[in-house]
Amino acid sequence: MKARVTVYPRKEILDPQGKAIQSALARVGFRSVREVRAGKSFELDLGVDDAQQAGDLLAAMCEKLLANTVVEDYEIELLAADAS
Amino acid sequence: MKARVTVYPRKEILDPQGKAIQSALARVGFRSVREVRAGKSFELDLGVDDAQQAGDLLAAMCEKLLANTVVEDYEIELLAADAS
Repeated sequence: MKARVTVYPRKEILDPQGKAIQSALARVGFRSVREVRAGKSFELDLGVDDAQQAGDLLAAMCEKLLANTVVEDYEIELLAADAS
Repeated sequence: MKARVTVYPRKEILDPQGKAIQSALARVGFRSVREVRAGKSFELDLGVDDAQQAGDLLAAMCEKLLANTVVEDYEIELLAADAS
């Protein structure tokens, strides 16, 4: 089963990388942009088939390694099972 | 209108960051994971309301700044318009 994990800085945390990208976009002509938040995205092939198990596994991975939950929020999304 | 842009290394390009994360996951006990790809995610508040215009704007931003299209693919996703 494949899944996608998205990790963003928490809403109440400053996001200097997002601000820098917003400024860069304005410099190349995209002046309408009001806010940018920059995060990370991971696409995983989990090697398990059960959705419940996959969800538990992903939550554990995020807590342990993929996200720093002090300053980051994560979002888990199960993708359609692959053909394998 | 809000949107999310996800940028990943192209499938045919090696992804050493993803490989490193896969090894790290295996070291902390997640040995079933078959593949990890590491990418970037941007959440933007575009400051335009028209979906067609938003899509065009996002494609232009990706080509110009957000993605390096030589080695990266991008994916655009329009989110529900915010209350503003």
